[in-house]
Amino acid sequence: MTDRAKARVTRHFWSSAKLPEGEKPHPAPISLVGGMPNHDFFPVKSIRIGISEKPFEDGYHEEAAVAYEPQPDSSFLVSQVASDPLEIDLKTGLQYGFTSGTKCLVDFTRDFVEKVWRPGYDEWSTMLTCGGSNGIDKVFDSFLSKGDSMLLEEFTFIPVLNSLANLGVHTVPVKLDFGPDKNFDFSANLKEVLENWDTLHPGKKKPKLLYTIPTGQNPLGVAQTTEHKKKILELAEEHDFVILEDEPYAYLNFQKVSETPKFDLTPQEFIDSLHGSYINLDTTGRVIRTETFSKVFAPGLRLGFLAGHKRVIQSCTQYSDLSSRAPSGISQILVNDTIRYMGGLDGWLKWIIKVRNEYLVRKNAFVKALLDTEAAKKGYLKVMDPECGMFVSSIVDFGKDNLEKGTELLKTRCAVNGVGVVYGGAMAVNYEFSKERTNFVRMAICYTGSTDLLVEAAARLSKSVLEVAAQLE
Amino acid sequence: MTDRAKARVTRHFWSSAKLPEGEKPHPAPISLVGGMPNHDFFPVKSIRIGISEKPFEDGYHEEAAVAYEPQPDSSFLVSQVASDPLEIDLKTGLQYGFTSGTKCLVDFTRDFVEKVWRPGYDEWSTMLTCGGSNGIDKVFDSFLSKGDSMLLEEFTFIPVLNSLANLGVHTVPVKLDFGPDKNFDFSANLKEVLENWDTLHPGKKKPKLLYTIPTGQNPLGVAQTTEHKKKILELAEEHDFVILEDEPYAYLNFQKVSETPKFDLTPQEFIDSLHGSYINLDTTGRVIRTETFSKVFAPGLRLGFLAGHKRVIQSCTQYSDLSSRAPSGISQILVNDTIRYMGGLDGWLKWIIKVRNEYLVRKNAFVKALLDTEAAKKGYLKVMDPECGMFVSSIVDFGKDNLEKGTELLKTRCAVNGVGVVYGGAMAVNYEFSKERTNFVRMAICYTGSTDLLVEAAARLSKSVLEVAAQLE
Repeated sequence: MTDRAKARVTRHFWSSAKLPEGEKPHPAPISLVGGMPNHDFFPVKSIRIGISEKPFEDGYHEEAAVAYEPQPDSSFLVSQVASDPLEIDLKTGLQYGFTSGTKCLVDFTRDFVEKVWRPGYDEWSTMLTCGGSNGIDKVFDSFLSKGDSMLLEEFTFIPVLNSLANLGVHTVPVKLDFGPDKNFDFSANLKEVLENWDTLHPGKKKPKLLYTIPTGQNPLGVAQTTEHKKKILELAEEHDFVILEDEPYAYLNFQKVSETPKFDLTPQEFIDSLHGSYINLDTTGRVIRTETFSKVFAPGLRLGFLAGHKRVIQSCTQYSDLSSRAPSGISQILVNDTIRYMGGLDGWLKWIIKVRNEYLVRKNAFVKALLDTEAAKKGYLKVMDPECGMFVSSIVDFGKDNLEKGTELLKTRCAVNGVGVVYGGAMAVNYEFSKERTNFVRMAICYTGSTDLLVEAAARLSKSVLEVAAQLE
Repeated sequence: MTDRAKARVTRHFWSSAKLPEGEKPHPAPISLVGGMPNHDFFPVKSIRIGISEKPFEDGYHEEAAVAYEPQPDSSFLVSQVASDPLEIDLKTGLQYGFTSGTKCLVDFTRDFVEKVWRPGYDEWSTMLTCGGSNGIDKVFDSFLSKGDSMLLEEFTFIPVLNSLANLGVHTVPVKLDFGPDKNFDFSANLKEVLENWDTLHPGKKKPKLLYTIPTGQNPLGVAQTTEHKKKILELAEEHDFVILEDEPYAYLNFQKVSETPKFDLTPQEFIDSLHGSYINLDTTGRVIRTETFSKVFAPGLRLGFLAGHKRVIQSCTQYSDLSSRAPSGISQILVNDTIRYMGGLDGWLKWIIKVRNEYLVRKNAFVKALLDTEAAKKGYLKVMDPECGMFVSSIVDFGKDNLEKGTELLKTRCAVNGVGVVYGGAMAVNYEFSKERTNFVRMAICYTGSTDLLVEAAARLSKSVLEVAAQLE
C-alpha cells in the first residue's frame, strides 16, 4: 500500500466520555451531537417502486423467457419507518450513512460474493462504491504513488488511463493475441515483460498492480480461463504485484453462436456456468474484485462494490471518508429493497439470468448477421464471437499495408452509412505499441432498442467495409 | 490552480469522424459505441413519490405554519419516459449521466444562485457534487498542493482537516472572538496573520485559500455581516487568496430570541432576510460557494452543488471525471422532480421557509430554556443565541483556572445525566492555539423529535454544569 494510504488518519469530533469507576451512563440520553436532520424534515414521505418482471416486457424474446416467473404484484412501498432490518427505509436511506454502505446491503454483497465467487481465504470483506470506476479509483489510491508502474491489457477500458495519468503512474501495456480462432492467453507476454523489465522499461519501478477485465474483456469480449488466471496469479506471487479484476460483465456469459443457447438455468446452474474469478483462486489476499450495479441494474445509481482483503477494504473506506463519502442512500434503497422484493439472493440471480438471456439473444442475432455479411464472406470482416459481455468485436482486414489508411476511410464510410462503432486504436493504452493490432472495431449490443437494429447495423458495417475495400483496390 | 489540476487531460475513446468535403453523415445512425444498457434493461419501471406538505406533519408548530399551503395532491409519478424536459425520468436518471449533473437540475441550481445570491460577475457557473463535503474536496483538489498553506476559522467543521492532512497542507487557524454579547469579526485577526506571515509561519508558503462558514458558523452559530465579508474580500485581493464559502446553513436564518419571530415570509421577503454571500460581493471570480441538499432536503441523497468561476467549475468537473463521476441519478430525480412538483424555484423556497420556520421554533424554545436554567442564571452557562444554522453554542465558564478540568468533569456529568454535546476542543483546528477559548459546548437542534426533548436537554445540561461547579468549589 502507498505511504499516503498507510499514513491516513481520520479525526472525529464526536467523542464519547470514558466514565470514571462507579459512574454509569444515562439509560436514555438526548443527543445534541451530530448535525443530522430529523427524518421528519425530509420532504419525501414514501416511495412506491414499480418493478419490471423481465427486461423489454413487451418485446421480450420468447425463447429467452423460460426463466420467467410472473410475480403476484409488481410494485412495493418504501416507507418512512420500517421494522424489517433487511429493508432500507427512508428514515435510514435519506439520513447520513456509513461510508462503506448501509449494513444490510453490505451484508448482501458479502453473501453474494461468498455464494458466487467464494474467495480462497477468510480475511476478506466488501464495501459499496459510487460505481465501478469509483471503486477502481479507490484501489488506485491505495496502491499507486507517483512514479509507480502498472500493467494493463494493451486494449482496455480507457477512462482508467485518466486516473493513472493524474496519479503520475507509468502505464505498461501487455500485448494481446486475439482473433476469431485464437486462444486468448497473455500470460507468456506478461512473463516476458516482467522477466525483461530492466531492458524493456529502464529506470522504471517494477509494476505494483495489474488491471485486468477477465470476463467479457473490454473491448475484445473474450474470457480468461481458470488455467490462464492461475498462470497470471503465479506471476503475481513471483513478481509481487496486486491484481485488480474489473468484472462488470461477469454475469453476461454466452454460448458460442454455433452452440445451442442455454436459457433455462437455475441460479446454481447459472453460477456453475460463469467463468470464475481471480478472487476464488487467491489464497493470500492479492486480488481485489470490483463490481458494479450499472450493467445488471442501472448505471445512474452510481453504485458498485469492492471485494478484497480486509485491510485493502479498510484503506479504500478511509479514502472514501475524504473523497466521495457514502454512496447515495436513495440508490442503496432502490437496489437493496428491489432485490429484497425480488426474493433476495436467489431472486436477484433470477433477474440477472433474464438480463443475460436477453443479451445472449442479441449477441447471437448480431454475430449471425455479421457472419452472413458479404464483408465477412469476402474475408474483410473477421468476427470474434464473444464469450461474455456487452461487446462484439471484429477485425477489419484490408491487408497489412492498408491498416491505418483503411481505418481512416472506414470512419468516413461508417459515418455516411450510419453505423457508430469504436475503433481499436482509440482503446489502446499506447497506440504506437499496439498499432499493428488496432485494425478492429468494437460494437456494443446493449443500447439499441431491438435486435432488428443490430441486424441493420451489421448490413451498414458490411456496406462500409466493402466500399473501403473498393477504394483501396 | 494547482499544476496537477491544470495539467489534467481526459482521454475519450468515442471519436466522431471529421468527414471529407462533400460527404454527409447518415441522418439516422445506429450507435454501437457506448456501453450504456438500454433503459428497458433496468428493473425499475416507475417510482411514485409521496411528499410531505410540511416538516413534522402531525407535530408541526402552528405558529410556524403560516406559510403552509395545502396541495391538492401529495404524490407524483416518475415514469420511465417523460416528455417534459424539466422532469428527470427513469430513462435519463437511471442512465449514465453528465459528470456535472443532469441539465435541468444544473440549470435549476444556476437559476437559484442567480435569484438568491446574484454573483458580482458574469463568468460563473454551477455543477452538482456528491454532497457538500465532496464539493469541498473537489475545490481543495483544484487549489491545494502538498506544502501549501490554508486559512481556517480556529473552530470549524473538522472533517475538512482530514482532507487537508491527506493533501499535506499546512493549516492555519485564525483566532475568533465570540461570546453572547460580542460582534463576530475576525478580519483584524486575519489581517494580523497575513501581515506577520513570515514571523508567525516561518518557512511556510503564503496561504492560497480561506475556508469559511459565513452563516450559522459551525460550531458557533454566528453570521458574518456584509461589512465583515467586504473586509475579508479586501484582504483576499491584497494577499491573493481564494475564498471557499461553505454554506449548508444559509437558509436557516433566525431572529434573536428577544425579537418577534417572523414566520409568514414570501419567497422574496425570505431572500431579502438572508445574510448575504461572498459570491455576491465578488467581482473577479475569487470566491467559490458550496451548498448541499443535505440540510434542507436529505443528507442520504449525497447531493450538493458548487457555484464559482467557470474555470474553477471546469477544473472540479475534470476531477469528478476521475474520482466520483456523476452524482447518483436517482438522487437527482428525487430532488429535481420533487422541486418541480413543488412548483419550481418559488415552490422550493416555500418548502425551505417551512423548514426554517420549524428550526426557528426549536431554536427559540431551546435558547429560552437554556437562558432560564439555574446554570445560566448563576453565570456558569453563557448562551450564544445563534443568528443562523443548526447549532446553539454556549460558553461554560468555571473560571479561567478550571478550564480543562471543568471540561473533563463536565463530560462525565453529561454522560451520566444523559445529554450528548460536542465540546469546543474537539472542533479546534489546533487545540494548543485555541485552548483558552475551548470552554464551550455545541448543541444540535436538528435531530431530536420534539422541542420538549430540547427543553429536557437544557435541564440536564444545567444539572451537569451545576454538579461540576459544586465539585470545583
